[in-house]
Amino acid sequence: MLKKIIKILPVLSVVYGGSALADEGMWQPHQLQEISGKLKQAGLELDPSQMQNLNQFPMNAIISLGGCTASFLSEQGLVVTNHHCAYGSIQYNSTEKSNLLKQGFVAEDFTAELPAAPGSRVYVTESLTNVTDKITGSIDKSVQGEAYYKAIEAKQKALVAQCETSQDYRCEVYSFHGGMEYFLIKQLAIRDVRLVYAPPSSIGKFGGDTDNWMWPRHTGDWAFYRAYVNKDGKPADFSKDNVPFKAKAFLKVNANGVEQDDYVMVLGYPGRTNRYRTVAEVENQFTWVYPTAKRYREEYIDIIKDSAPVGSEARIKYESTLAGLANYAKNYGSMLESYNKGDMLARKQKELADLQAWINSSTERKQQYGKALQQLDKLVAQSQQQQARDLLLSYIGRTNLMGVAKRLYRLANEKTKPDAERKPGYQARDMNRFTQSMTGVNRRYDATVDKAVLAHFIAEYATFPKDQRNAAFDKYFGLTQTFNEEKLQKQLDKMHSKTQLDEEAVRLAWMDKSVAEFKKSKDPYIQFAVSQYESDMAQEQKLEALTGQLAQARPAYMQAMIAFKQSKGEPVYADANSSLRITYGNVKGYSPQDGLVAKPFTTLEGMLAKYKPGDGEFDLFENIRTAIANKQYGKYYRQNLDSVPVNYLSTLDITGGNSGSPTLNSKGEFVGLVFDGVYESIIGDWDYNPELNRAIHTSVPFMLWTMENIDGANNIVDELTIVE
Amino acid sequence: MLKKIIKILPVLSVVYGGSALADEGMWQPHQLQEISGKLKQAGLELDPSQMQNLNQFPMNAIISLGGCTASFLSEQGLVVTNHHCAYGSIQYNSTEKSNLLKQGFVAEDFTAELPAAPGSRVYVTESLTNVTDKITGSIDKSVQGEAYYKAIEAKQKALVAQCETSQDYRCEVYSFHGGMEYFLIKQLAIRDVRLVYAPPSSIGKFGGDTDNWMWPRHTGDWAFYRAYVNKDGKPADFSKDNVPFKAKAFLKVNANGVEQDDYVMVLGYPGRTNRYRTVAEVENQFTWVYPTAKRYREEYIDIIKDSAPVGSEARIKYESTLAGLANYAKNYGSMLESYNKGDMLARKQKELADLQAWINSSTERKQQYGKALQQLDKLVAQSQQQQARDLLLSYIGRTNLMGVAKRLYRLANEKTKPDAERKPGYQARDMNRFTQSMTGVNRRYDATVDKAVLAHFIAEYATFPKDQRNAAFDKYFGLTQTFNEEKLQKQLDKMHSKTQLDEEAVRLAWMDKSVAEFKKSKDPYIQFAVSQYESDMAQEQKLEALTGQLAQARPAYMQAMIAFKQSKGEPVYADANSSLRITYGNVKGYSPQDGLVAKPFTTLEGMLAKYKPGDGEFDLFENIRTAIANKQYGKYYRQNLDSVPVNYLSTLDITGGNSGSPTLNSKGEFVGLVFDGVYESIIGDWDYNPELNRAIHTSVPFMLWTMENIDGANNIVDELTIVE
Repeated sequence: MLKKIIKILPVLSVVYGGSALADEGMWQPHQLQEISGKLKQAGLELDPSQMQNLNQFPMNAIISLGGCTASFLSEQGLVVTNHHCAYGSIQYNSTEKSNLLKQGFVAEDFTAELPAAPGSRVYVTESLTNVTDKITGSIDKSVQGEAYYKAIEAKQKALVAQCETSQDYRCEVYSFHGGMEYFLIKQLAIRDVRLVYAPPSSIGKFGGDTDNWMWPRHTGDWAFYRAYVNKDGKPADFSKDNVPFKAKAFLKVNANGVEQDDYVMVLGYPGRTNRYRTVAEVENQFTWVYPTAKRYREEYIDIIKDSAPVGSEARIKYESTLAGLANYAKNYGSMLESYNKGDMLARKQKELADLQAWINSSTERKQQYGKALQQLDKLVAQSQQQQARDLLLSYIGRTNLMGVAKRLYRLANEKTKPDAERKPGYQARDMNRFTQSMTGVNRRYDATVDKAVLAHFIAEYATFPKDQRNAAFDKYFGLTQTFNEEKLQKQLDKMHSKTQLDEEAVRLAWMDKSVAEFKKSKDPYIQFAVSQYESDMAQEQKLEALTGQLAQARPAYMQAMIAFKQSKGEPVYADANSSLRITYGNVKGYSPQDGLVAKPFTTLEGMLAKYKPGDGEFDLFENIRTAIANKQYGKYYRQNLDSVPVNYLSTLDITGGNSGSPTLNSKGEFVGLVFDGVYESIIGDWDYNPELNRAIHTSVPFMLWTMENIDGANNIVDELTIVE
Repeated sequence: MLKKIIKILPVLSVVYGGSALADEGMWQPHQLQEISGKLKQAGLELDPSQMQNLNQFPMNAIISLGGCTASFLSEQGLVVTNHHCAYGSIQYNSTEKSNLLKQGFVAEDFTAELPAAPGSRVYVTESLTNVTDKITGSIDKSVQGEAYYKAIEAKQKALVAQCETSQDYRCEVYSFHGGMEYFLIKQLAIRDVRLVYAPPSSIGKFGGDTDNWMWPRHTGDWAFYRAYVNKDGKPADFSKDNVPFKAKAFLKVNANGVEQDDYVMVLGYPGRTNRYRTVAEVENQFTWVYPTAKRYREEYIDIIKDSAPVGSEARIKYESTLAGLANYAKNYGSMLESYNKGDMLARKQKELADLQAWINSSTERKQQYGKALQQLDKLVAQSQQQQARDLLLSYIGRTNLMGVAKRLYRLANEKTKPDAERKPGYQARDMNRFTQSMTGVNRRYDATVDKAVLAHFIAEYATFPKDQRNAAFDKYFGLTQTFNEEKLQKQLDKMHSKTQLDEEAVRLAWMDKSVAEFKKSKDPYIQFAVSQYESDMAQEQKLEALTGQLAQARPAYMQAMIAFKQSKGEPVYADANSSLRITYGNVKGYSPQDGLVAKPFTTLEGMLAKYKPGDGEFDLFENIRTAIANKQYGKYYRQNLDSVPVNYLSTLDITGGNSGSPTLNSKGEFVGLVFDGVYESIIGDWDYNPELNRAIHTSVPFMLWTMENIDGANNIVDELTIVE
């Protein structure tokens, strides 16, 4: 499945743009007018200009959960999203006695609804404003490098501070095309979110990791939340006096779902794509970064498995870490496979050559864009100089206590400044999340595992040449002389036995301590953080200077690219950056390999064929097996399939963050939920291939059939506005 | 791929018959008249009555290699078969310096052709005679059980002896429908066989074990032999004075190959199917035999891997044993998967109930068939009584020296009788093969592995209850008291260190020794063989008595079944028994699972997409990669595929032994070679499912394209008679 994206604070997020082929493209609402011809040609029956208005249907029915997308399906704040987006909340309400993950959950009425996991939010976008003028437009041209970076950061923070009038709102600045444009998004942040419905995992997570990213697929990846506000209609903490949020708009549900070739679109918050990286960046990513990171992840997995045997308490703590490591090891592996099979690099090279030729063929263009490519390449090369060190140290930094100590000490340092001047992530507005991250540590930490991981990766780091080393790190661990594994082991043993950062109360207490107190501490991990601080700050400054330069070079490159594309009449979309987008296309199968065709629909019979009794991934309760065996399909039976459609494929251009996005038909009716891409789409973050990129959706007939016939959730079905 | 079938001497081979659905059926030549309507309806343009004559085209172009099928493609004895059927001969001619397996081989002219592996034969069927009257028809009705068995065996041997007028002929008696009918087949046995052409393994074995039984497939599984005879046209040992065998008929090659839905048929020697086993037999096979045998094989594999580390000399010796064990472990696993997913047992149960009802609805039928089912069930139950012991002892018997010693001692005993009275396998006519099997031992034997396997399985055997034990075996290994693993280990160490049967010369010398000499021997393995002999003979006698009873009960059951089928107008084919059969059907894809469709053709582009540099299974030479990348397809380009077809699927009903069979179109032209079935077909030996059973063929355009453009084998292409 698509993984939830942990929203990264949008500090000069490096994102780029590309041109659109058929079905390719994640369009910003304001672009819909520009592509209205194509939308109508594809089958859209709504007026594109209506869709670009965030306060009008259907855009005002689309919401964000922060990392996932969702939508309103009733006036009473009923929210539909993916089962895997609501997973944490289902887990949060599960006990050994009442295992909602396993059994599923149906709130019989509003009072039976359960609080979502702490921190759950429903974000309703209220406005989206182009603030480019207020950011880069207001910086003097003489400002460069680090100063440029800091100027942008300061202006972003100021805009956010001005916008966030209360905790009821969350505001963020998103950069497009690598800093060419900036938009400020203001969202109402509803914080009383409740769980209304979840199918059993054997439906909602059917196929588990085995089927993840795979087709044929049979997953019922949906769940319902409800947004609550206080009686004045304002966001409020959980209270039984709260009332359902009155959604300004909601989607009608089309009980027939879709047919092959139907127009479909997905509205949502895709996380991150890299469609317009340069040739050098692509080559480096696929020949060095992914292969190396894949190896690190596989080593990491092996170490955890070795040091935390199956069934041990430690292993349970690391299950989600393992899943995350494995998920992206598989992801990188698949990307490498696609890259090696495909011709992406050759196409990039041709595109670059074409762009260069187009620039060179006009004196004016030469003057305007001539240096952009060269300048960007130079900076990119610079940014890769110490990547071996940086990547390995980032994996070392994934161990728990190092990160904890460093973030705590950073907080102490930031707190010496006025709030507005603090680094994003350390401001007052961030303290809720900060506290949460400090309380969560022990659920994912075991000293033995932590040490084993550190020992392994530090030993690898010790083999690096001098120019790929970090002097402060070397000094702390005594890596300046010949590496001695036994000595390191003893040092780590001592650090872990002496530190108190493995206690939640201690960590929380450090959140309020001063720089001086840190400096006096005898805790080895606090000492480690203090010892690295100056060096880390110098690194950060260097990085900010480079990022500042890139924030000027990248837009220059993108301007050339966009002008070139536009000269050919190709509309250009920006890379995904977690902001609201629209992708449109059609319901369509594909050929995953020579000799095979993936049909666009799977059926309930196919789900039953995968059934494995007692299996963690492919189990099915008796009621659904019996219903399928007897073809008790009622009005959801579709003759051309001789069954009920379970999942379907489309050509839509999606990525992580789109999870939970509603799929709409040409009239803007709800026809399913997007929840994954096929295996061949994994490289889609870099390269959209119209032959192979396919999104996977859960179908409406399957959802309604399950809720009515299997889970007895007729009250929820009744709340929907169903059309046929 | 389909595995070569080691032809088992057809001593009362237990085979059964079934009725035919569309595309199902392995028809005997004499049946073609009966199904001529269906053949014409399916698209056959030849006259079915012509095809039932073995001495007429196309049947006289079809030949057997003993375990594989082949056909003549020129008047000068040019033989085409599968690469995997000629594998031993290619390997036999390979040296480190001149690795024909890897590089492929093209004989530039007749003089450059290489001798095939020792023992290679081309069998040209000359006659096929129904001899039922001479066998069961001439046995008095009072003869029963063991006597009945011995009578059949004696009559078979007499017919064979009478038929085999010289070593130029090989004759065998095949039983049909479990002993209801017998046919005598007389084959000219050509023994100067030469290798003419083999593609490199990267074409001929492309995909290796990974793609074995899989679709999509891209294997060029063909090779050429030539049959040579002396100047008088008689079979002769290899001599450079020999001349190509003048084939009475050969197949024309259709350069266009086939299109989707085309009529195709395969003529060949399918090994063994079990389509009409009883309900009890099917249930026992799939709930006990296959699961248990699969486990034994997996344990066997683990032991070999543990005791013969990768790279060791021992491991090299066991590679083919490992491949064989793994191949059938996978095979059984797949059959169990299909069985558990499907409804074969339920259909068998219904068929049985229908048959029973049909019998019961008529007094006459009740009298004629009433006891057949009951009697067969009783005997089947009896045959399963000690199956746990027998299966495990058969895996113990797979270790090398036990089998060697037992067979040598058996030979000494058989030799005390006149040749005609000896057991099949121990007659003069069998001595070539016997010697070969004794000389081959050391290539597949290592004492450490042999001991480890014995220790493991004997320990398991020792846990069996008394009624599942063999007293003589228990006595020899001292298993009568509490099992002591250490003691067994010491005993095995002693046996392996003292025995001389691990020397080829010693084994060959024992072939000529007397029973008395065996009894005096101090060789522990000879002593073992002597100690088991009486008990084994008693077992054999018991088994023969049972087999004799079955040889009466099974035909009675089959007569009832056939009469029942015929009453419904369904023609009945006999189970495969390595005799000549025809299967017909169409070129057609299938749906391997919900949401996926397998197209009927694969292409060269798909082959290139699987390419993995340096990989043992998916490597491709540069010349083929370049030719594909540049689409240098010439006249073999097919527009609807935008490529050259590599492999294709058909609905044909095949099994092991069909390997190398020519695929013919409606005019009897050669359009490819069948070489495998898809994964879902593995259960086909028990149950033909028209939705899932698919045979895989190598296409003619791919063969010709490769020979002309990649391998420079134009001389061979020129020898063919090509039509378009």
